[in-house]
Formats: sequence, structure tokens, C-alpha cells
Amino acid sequence: MHKIPVGVLGASGYTGRELCALVGRHPGLALAWAAAHERTGDRMHVAGLGPVTFVAADAAPLADAELVFSALPHGASAPWVARAHAAGAKVIDLSADLRPGQPSKAANATVAADAYGLPELERETVRAASVVANPGCYATAVLLGLLPALTRGLVASDATISVSAASGVTGAGDAPKRELLFAEVTEDFRPYSVGNHHRHLPEMRAAVARFVNGADLVFTPHLLPVARGIIATITVPLVAPVADPLALWRQHYAGECFVEVADAPPALRDVVHRNVAHVFVMSVVGVRRPTLLVIVAIDNLLKGAAGQAVQNANLLLGLPEADGLPA
Amino acid sequence: MHKIPVGVLGASGYTGRELCALVGRHPGLALAWAAAHERTGDRMHVAGLGPVTFVAADAAPLADAELVFSALPHGASAPWVARAHAAGAKVIDLSADLRPGQPSKAANATVAADAYGLPELERETVRAASVVANPGCYATAVLLGLLPALTRGLVASDATISVSAASGVTGAGDAPKRELLFAEVTEDFRPYSVGNHHRHLPEMRAAVARFVNGADLVFTPHLLPVARGIIATITVPLVAPVADPLALWRQHYAGECFVEVADAPPALRDVVHRNVAHVFVMSVVGVRRPTLLVIVAIDNLLKGAAGQAVQNANLLLGLPEADGLPA
Amino acid sequence: MHKIPVGVLGASGYTGRELCALVGRHPGLALAWAAAHERTGDRMHVAGLGPVTFVAADAAPLADAELVFSALPHGASAPWVARAHAAGAKVIDLSADLRPGQPSKAANATVAADAYGLPELERETVRAASVVANPGCYATAVLLGLLPALTRGLVASDATISVSAASGVTGAGDAPKRELLFAEVTEDFRPYSVGNHHRHLPEMRAAVARFVNGADLVFTPHLLPVARGIIATITVPLVAPVADPLALWRQHYAGECFVEVADAPPALRDVVHRNVAHVFVMSVVGVRRPTLLVIVAIDNLLKGAAGQAVQNANLLLGLPEADGLPA
Amino acid sequence: MHKIPVGVLGASGYTGRELCALVGRHPGLALAWAAAHERTGDRMHVAGLGPVTFVAADAAPLADAELVFSALPHGASAPWVARAHAAGAKVIDLSADLRPGQPSKAANATVAADAYGLPELERETVRAASVVANPGCYATAVLLGLLPALTRGLVASDATISVSAASGVTGAGDAPKRELLFAEVTEDFRPYSVGNHHRHLPEMRAAVARFVNGADLVFTPHLLPVARGIIATITVPLVAPVADPLALWRQHYAGECFVEVADAPPALRDVVHRNVAHVFVMSVVGVRRPTLLVIVAIDNLLKGAAGQAVQNANLLLGLPEADGLPA
Repeated sequence: MHKIPVGVLGASGYTGRELCALVGRHPGLALAWAAAHERTGDRMHVAGLGPVTFVAADAAPLADAELVFSALPHGASAPWVARAHAAGAKVIDLSADLRPGQPSKAANATVAADAYGLPELERETVRAASVVANPGCYATAVLLGLLPALTRGLVASDATISVSAASGVTGAGDAPKRELLFAEVTEDFRPYSVGNHHRHLPEMRAAVARFVNGADLVFTPHLLPVARGIIATITVPLVAPVADPLALWRQHYAGECFVEVADAPPALRDVVHRNVAHVFVMSVVGVRRPTLLVIVAIDNLLKGAAGQAVQNANLLLGLPEADGLPA
Repeated sequence: MHKIPVGVLGASGYTGRELCALVGRHPGLALAWAAAHERTGDRMHVAGLGPVTFVAADAAPLADAELVFSALPHGASAPWVARAHAAGAKVIDLSADLRPGQPSKAANATVAADAYGLPELERETVRAASVVANPGCYATAVLLGLLPALTRGLVASDATISVSAASGVTGAGDAPKRELLFAEVTEDFRPYSVGNHHRHLPEMRAAVARFVNGADLVFTPHLLPVARGIIATITVPLVAPVADPLALWRQHYAGECFVEVADAPPALRDVVHRNVAHVFVMSVVGVRRPTLLVIVAIDNLLKGAAGQAVQNANLLLGLPEADGLPA
Repeated sequence: MHKIPVGVLGASGYTGRELCALVGRHPGLALAWAAAHERTGDRMHVAGLGPVTFVAADAAPLADAELVFSALPHGASAPWVARAHAAGAKVIDLSADLRPGQPSKAANATVAADAYGLPELERETVRAASVVANPGCYATAVLLGLLPALTRGLVASDATISVSAASGVTGAGDAPKRELLFAEVTEDFRPYSVGNHHRHLPEMRAAVARFVNGADLVFTPHLLPVARGIIATITVPLVAPVADPLALWRQHYAGECFVEVADAPPALRDVVHRNVAHVFVMSVVGVRRPTLLVIVAIDNLLKGAAGQAVQNANLLLGLPEADGLPA
Repeated sequence: MHKIPVGVLGASGYTGRELCALVGRHPGLALAWAAAHERTGDRMHVAGLGPVTFVAADAAPLADAELVFSALPHGASAPWVARAHAAGAKVIDLSADLRPGQPSKAANATVAADAYGLPELERETVRAASVVANPGCYATAVLLGLLPALTRGLVASDATISVSAASGVTGAGDAPKRELLFAEVTEDFRPYSVGNHHRHLPEMRAAVARFVNGADLVFTPHLLPVARGIIATITVPLVAPVADPLALWRQHYAGECFVEVADAPPALRDVVHRNVAHVFVMSVVGVRRPTLLVIVAIDNLLKGAAGQAVQNANLLLGLPEADGLPA
């Protein structure tokens, strides 16, 4: 069977390696090349493929790939997306560079995204796109939790949506930093980018603003002493009480292969190593203002990054959406 | 020097052992006896004391203690508080039984608390009390975060205060349960008692209601894969913007020996094994409604339980408030 | 395609669930029933199968299964192996009950094992067997490390083979015990069953004694603060120096699908969630007596238990040996 | 009360900070300065002292300190020991540079150690010394385990003493390295410096060689997913059986304030945050050659480094040996 050749830019980081591993096990994709600036020449074992040698990005045969994933750092990615696009490839950019709401770091970028790659929000746009901005991990979790409320007009326009979220350390990348050493992280827990200063907030806001005008969003991420996984805990003030929110969320996500509406609050172990979001919703008791509690769990490296990127690639390339993805 | 004899009921659990260890190092207290139902006859090494043998609660010479700490489980504690009180001892109850807002599980209890033992809220009442209800660990963290706002009338009465908090597993006690096994907790993170069903919520509400009428409180606790420590992340809608909240919080806690107002968000490692609360506050940007973000870290076994109990004991017995407590 | 029906006794523990999950993904096996005494009626999600409801062992239709896996506790397993065997099923017993060297706890047992299911040691015997004793996890690691030396007569008969090994907590099962709580295990490490008192030692000795007469074995296991995985670190005094032990080990295991001879010492992360053993060997420098250092890593639940059991089932049932096993 | 001024070179690493904290709580020592090359100008909070600002080593007023601790890296330390000594200070060197058996990396070093600072081995030599080589953490654990056997001539001269040991990650320092990131270490365990290539082996050998001629030593360290602590598991072939080894070990260490002979195998949690070694010994059963199993636990940063350094400083300065050390 013919496999579609794809390339990976930024292949040596946690997300890049996860991408290569997904491609290695994918029935319809073949890894044409894997580029990693700092580790050019290093070999990495990829399940299903055996050893893969990193090439320099400059030496990557961009045109050999029908589709290029960029897992390059924020800021560095946009120019490479442009180069890959100019070379004729479809591109999925996992950085923040081309996402909605981003300040145009890449002001003289010659490329823009045709779609924001949250399939559950804009599947058809992704299918038709040639450049896709893959959502941030936190944004994926938060938006999958909110979409049923947003699309039904349930969120009060004067509301403050409060999001407290926590992520495993792979979300911070594998560049060696003292504060990410095992001895610093074990038995610790801490908030960061507090007071609405996190990079994923603009894209959340942009998506929320499509549906409700003026709702405030307060987002506080925390660093968990685990390798993988995100839990987002969200309180949503409503315009009016909702009788059976779980039924509503189930109805919204009926037919979605990667969103599971759970009847109990999710835990990281429900989703780790899987490309799924577990979503739970309930009414809060003992408050006068009708309020929902929504809790979402995803694997930050799969549904929050590489898995969702492959889901988008499947859409873009006309393959079955779930191909090659652990459900 | 004369040391005041104290007893500990429920001495074999995490909180009970922490109490014994604090008493063992305390310059003014002596451990008269330590009672533990299930482990009667077992010996425990207590720093500064050497081995201590647990007695049965029924056999504990209540009258030998000037003060009794009860670290018994919720529901089981109230009758023992009554017995110890009837035997002439002052009592500090670490269970929820006598806390404000609790449904009177102990309806025919012959005892009530004279004070809610959060010294930063009602120090003088504690000094004069003979029975003190020691606050819950989450309530301690949340109330220490909110007090400067509450006492100054900053919290909007139509507000929804949103609290997301996370605790280490010692908060769940040391009774063997499958879901608390290492293999279940490592690399996991999960919410529990969601939708405003946690036992500490009534006492938080009771304290908030002293200052603001009608504010809603949404409280979502989570279980962290760490042994000790709590972080509470709180968003507080305000009646009006506050120019320099950090200065206000500093002013409020000036002179407090166990509250540190930090100029950066706290982490568990700032407070673990210490009887302090680290409190951080800032204004949230990018929202229309003026909103504060307050973050508090404590050690659930110290400022959240045994340490605060000893702080209360010091007040009650006329000893220096900080005696015997790790700052 | 026809799938062979199998049953699992003791299906609710860590090993039992791993067995069900492997059967659920196996191309040639079908889960006929899963029995779990304490959790009869509970439902468990099995990947590839969906929800499975535990039946009581007494109610398990033994005869519906062509092959039965017993993951029952030591002591309780032997009688059930006999019942399943009497009902006409082939049986793979994952307990210690029928392993070589065991004191006959089940003295009036009416069944014995036809093979010790370490395929790399006695593959052909397994193929012909109807009752297989699946090796202990530690024994698997140690014997795979030693076999190339034992079969070549390299081990000195007056030697003391010293084995220090460490296992993740799933090796201790999921019965709730205080010493296995997260708060007890995190940041800890400890030896147990020291001084040659571990249950897996007799089977190691029995296997070693097939090849070398009189070598002493000292085995010290430790409990690691991880969920899964075993590392065994072995020093082996030799009759004479060996020039290139790595080449010898590679030659010995050429053609084995589940033993990888590594050119660097293995880590748990090389083997976790895989049915493989990583084996490393080198000569020790700076000693007068020629000595090898052998290091082996396995996943205690896969190559150390459920994975090896499925490997044996494949042999016993005439299926390809690697079917359904993550390599 | 007069406090003796001391300085710390290499104060910003895990060991250096532990030294500063011990000095900050010490009744007889005062921190004159703390030097840290890479973090000059940074402030560190030291318990009992408040904030301390790191100076550059070149700017450190060496002569202001009566005693200098060097926690500089191996190789870099010897020249600074010489400078501090020339400036008139007594010096305790925590690096390997001046330890017995080391290759003279510092060939043109103008300084040598007067004592190997294992007080339980050569207390009187330390008292009289002006430059002390503080033992390595692994060497401390191993030698404290072996000394009762070595000094009594129990170890067979043709013996192979096999040592498997495991250390928490603070033993590897706080320089940011990818392999020490939380995501790499959690749920992992791995040997390193295998085949007798660890830096601490020469000093172990040098100490063993004082008592027994020709015994082989095989030493295999492992990296544990914990922050602190070392367990060394040692098998010792004997010249003849020993009737009651525990009694012998207790007798040997009677009067030692920092060695506790335990009647059960130790765990890390027995020793972490304490300057003690827990030592356990028993005869191995089921072997023909009489063999002891010795297990030792220490905190690598205290009895294995900074705590032992302060213990040596106490001896060297004529202070009570246990002053300022957590027992």
C-alpha cells in the first residue's frame, strides 16, 4: 500500500518524537525525514521504523514530503512553515506562531493558517486547508470543555469563566533547565504564567469570542510532578440553569471519535497515551448564580499536540480521521 | 523547666504523628500519652522523645493532660472531645465535628467549640477558649488568602469566588485504600468531591458570610501525586479595582509570624515542613470586571492541621504563639 | 477468523487486568470470561473489548475456555489449576504454586506443571505441555541474564552469584496495604525479603542447579517508587576470563524475539509496557577474580508475568510466539 | 556567644546550600561568606540567617574564615583548597580531589589532606588535621557498613565484596542536564558508571586495603527517582561464620552518635534529613560459603556530604561533634 511521505521539523523534542512515533505506526503515512537542529546526526529509535537519523533543517528535503509537521519553538516556526509551504507541502504548525489572537511575531511572515486545527470546532475548514495552526494543549482542553456551552448560547456575556489547569512537565519541553530537574519538581506543585499571562490564552479568547461577546476568561496554569497529561477545571456562569448538562454534552459530542463525555470526573490515567479528551460536566450546588463545573483531561502530547496534529493531517490528506491514533 | 502535659487522641495517623513530633520538640509541652485505637501497644519513634507506646483511647488518662488534641476521624471525635472536656482538659479538635457550618452529626453532643481556631481571624477568642475547632486544611488556605479582601469589603456581593485547590495524599489519611496506593497515584492527578460537595466548604462559607452577604463560592479540590502540601488558586471578583493588592495584603498580615506575603506565586516547596502560609495576590489583566488572583500554599499537616493546632494550644495555654513551630 | 476462547482467574489484580488487556488486543485469542472473587459483578474496561464484567470463580464456565490463565495468589492457585485442568483446559499458572523448588504447599494437589514457562530456557517443553508454571518476575530477569553463562559452563562452581534487584510496586499487588500507600512509597526505597528469603529464590536456584553444581546465590530485592519495571544487577564470578561477553550474549539470544542484548546498561524506560528483556553484560575491571556484571531490565507485568504468560499460551496453542505482544 | 566564622566555596549547588543551611542553624558557627561562581550576586534564603548573597570565589575574603568548606566540583576544588589553606584557614574539601586513591588530577597541587574525614574510622586524625578530605557519599555508606567486619578480620582475603547501591538525584548535582529532567527520571531507574568505573571506588578500595589484602570489590551505583538518600546493599564473604553479626555491629558502633545499628533493613525514610547512617546486618541463609548481607542507608547530602563535613568541622575546631547536626 502506498504511504504518503511526511517530514517532521523539530523532531527531537518531546512533541517531535511523539510525532515520529505516531507516523511510524500510521497505516497511511511514511516518515520521509526528521529534522532536529541541535541533534543533527543523532539516531533515535522509532517504534515500527527502527533507527531514524536526524537531519539538519537546512538539509531537509522539504519537497520530498507531501505534508510537513513543524514542532519548532514559538517564533522559530513561522519562517519554516513558509519555506515548507513554498516547497509545495501542506503544513501543520504545532507552534503558537500562526494561531488566532497571536501578536504577529512573524510580521513579515509570508504565510498564514487557513484553519485552526481543532477538528471538533472546524473540521471542514481543516479538510480544505493547506496550512493548519495546531491548537495549544491547554486551549484544546479548555475549548473542548466549553464548546457545548458556547455553541448553545449558555454562557452569560457578563460572566467570568475561571480556568485552573495543571500540566505534566513534558509540556515545558526538554531543554535542560534547572527548574525542571527531577530534584526540583518531585513533591512540588506550582502555578506559573499567572494573572492571564500564558501564551495559550489569546487563542482561547479568540475561539470564545466567536460565540459570546465579552465574557471574561481567567486562566491559571500549574506545573504537575508527572510526565504527561493536563487537567483543566473550569467554572462557567450561565445565563440560566441547565437541567441535564451531561446529556447536553453527550449530544454535542455524539459521533466524535476522540471526545468521551464521562459520567465521573476524569483523571490523568484515563487519557494518558491516548488521543482522547475526557470531558465531565455538572451543575454546582449551593450557589445562587447557575454555574457549571466542567473538567477536561487530555494527554498534552497527544490530543494536546502530536495526536491532534496527526488527526488534522488525516483530515487534510483525506485519510480516515482516526487512522494511526491510539483511542 | 515545667512542661505542660498534653495528650493526643488519634495519634497513629499522619496528623496524629505530626502532633506527637511537634510536642516532642516543643519547649513548653510534654506528651503525657498518645492514644490510637487500632494500633494499641505499637511503639512509634518520636523525635526528641524516643519511643512512645500507643494506649487505647479508653485507657488514656484524660485527666493527666491539661490539654488534649483530638485527631480522631470526623464523626468519632465529638464524643471524645466531650469526655476530655468533662475530665477537665482544654481541647483542640482537629476533626470537622465542631466547626462552623457543619451539620450536627453529633446532635446529642454535650460540647461545642468556643472558637474557630484560625488565629489570624480570631486570635483573642482562641486565647479565651477551652474548646477550639481547628480549621480544615483547605479552609485554612482559602481563608488566609481571602481575609484581606473580606475584611476590607473588596469582594463583590454578587461575586462567584472560584477556588481550585490541590492537596498531597496525606490529606486523605493513612487508612489503606486501593485508590491511594502508590501505583494508582503516581503520574496521576484528579479532582474529587466536585460540584461543591467537599466537607471543608461549609466552614469556608461560614467565615466568608461574616463579611460579605451572598457571595457564591465554588470549590474544587484535586489529589496531587505528592505526600504533603496544598495550593489554593482563587479568583475573586471585586467591587472596584485595587491599586496595589500586594501592599494591602502585606499590611494586613504585618506582624503575623506564620503568614508570608510573597512577591511571586508560591510553590509547595516553599512551605513543606513549615507552619507557614505563603500568600500571593495580583490583579488579573485582560478582563473587564476587576478581579484578583490569590494563591496560597501551606503544608496540609502543619499550618493545615497539627502545626495550627499547636499554634492554637500555645494561645490557649498562654505560651508564646510561635513556640515549638517550624517557621 | 476463529479466536481461541481463554479464561482468566484472578482477573482484577494488576497482573489479571494486564492479561485481560493483552487478550483483548490479541489476534488469535478471545476472552471467554474473567473471574475475580472480591469484585464479582464489577465492570472493567478492556481495550479492544469494551466493558467486561467479573464473574465469581465458582461461576466461571471453566469448560468454555480452551486455555485458562490463573493469576490467583500463591497458595490459592493450585486447586484452581487442578479444577481447570480437570475441566479440559490447558492452564498457565502465574502463581508460585507449581514452580520448581517450591515447598509443596499444595501437598494434596492433584496437578503438577509439565513445563517451567521460560521460553528461552525450555521452549519445546512448553509447546508440548498442558500445564505451565509461569516464572516469577525476578526469576525471569535473573535467569535471562545468566543463561548464556550457565549453558556455557562459565560460572565457577564455588562462586557466589550476587543479585541485587529492584521492582516497581505493581509487583506487590493491589491489595490495600498501608506500606504501599503513595505517601509511604514516594521518595522512599527499601530492601525486603532480605537474606535469601524471597519466594522467587527457589525457582532461580532450581534453574541454576541444572547447569552448575553448588554455586551460591544471594538475592536481595528492593521496592522502587515507580509503578512498573524490574532491574536486576548481577555479579558472576567466572571459571576463566571471557574475552567478549557481549558478543557471546548476542550469539546466545540471536533469533529470540523478546530478548534484546543492549550495548549500554538498560533503564526501566527501555522496557516498560513492552514484553522484552534488555540484557547487558560486561567484564568488571580492577578485580583479580574474573567477574561479569550482568544487568537485566524487564516490565514486571509483561515479560515478568502477563506478557510471558501470553507468550507461553502462544507456544502451547500453536500460535506464532510473538502474537499479541508489544515488542 | 562567639561564633567561629566559616566560608563556603561552591555554595549554590545542592551540597553547598545544605552546608549554608547547617551553618545557619549551628550554635557555634557563623557564615562569613558564601561563594558561587555562576550565581554571583544571587540571593539565597538560609534558614536561621535570612537572605545570603553569593560572592565570586575570587572576591571571597578567604582570611575572614577560620574554616573553609569547599563544595566545588572535582578537579576545580584542589587549587582553591590550597588558596584557602595558604590564607590561614582550615579546610574541609568535599570534592574527590584529595581523597585516598585518587589519580592526582591536581598533580601540581601544593596541598594534601591530613585526614580522610570519616570520623568513625579516623576521628583522632581529623581532630589534629588542618585539611580534611570529606568522603564520597557512596564511600561513606559502604565503609560504615563494612568497618565492623574489616577491623575484626572477618572478610575473606579471596572474597569478592559485591556492592549494589542507589542514590537520589541530588547526588548528581544541580547543573541542568537533559537526562536529569523530571520527565526523564520519573518512573525510571538505571545503573550508571558500571563495571567498577565510579569515582568513589578508589577511596573505598584504599580504606578496605588497610584491613584486608586483596579482597575484590565490585561496585554498581544506580540512579533512583527520589531527591535524596542512598541505600547500599553489600554481600560480604567471610573467613568463617559469625554467630550474631547484629550484636557485633552494635558493639562496634556503641557510643557513635551518628550510626544506628537497626534490627530491620533500613529505608530511605529512616535517614532522610538526618545526619545518621542506619546499618543493618544479617547472615545469608542457604549458601555454603558463610556470607553476610549488610545494608546501609544515609542521606547523601547530610551524612554523605554536608552533614559529615560539619561533623568534621566540629572535630577540627574542638566543638562537640554533634553540634548543629540533625540526629
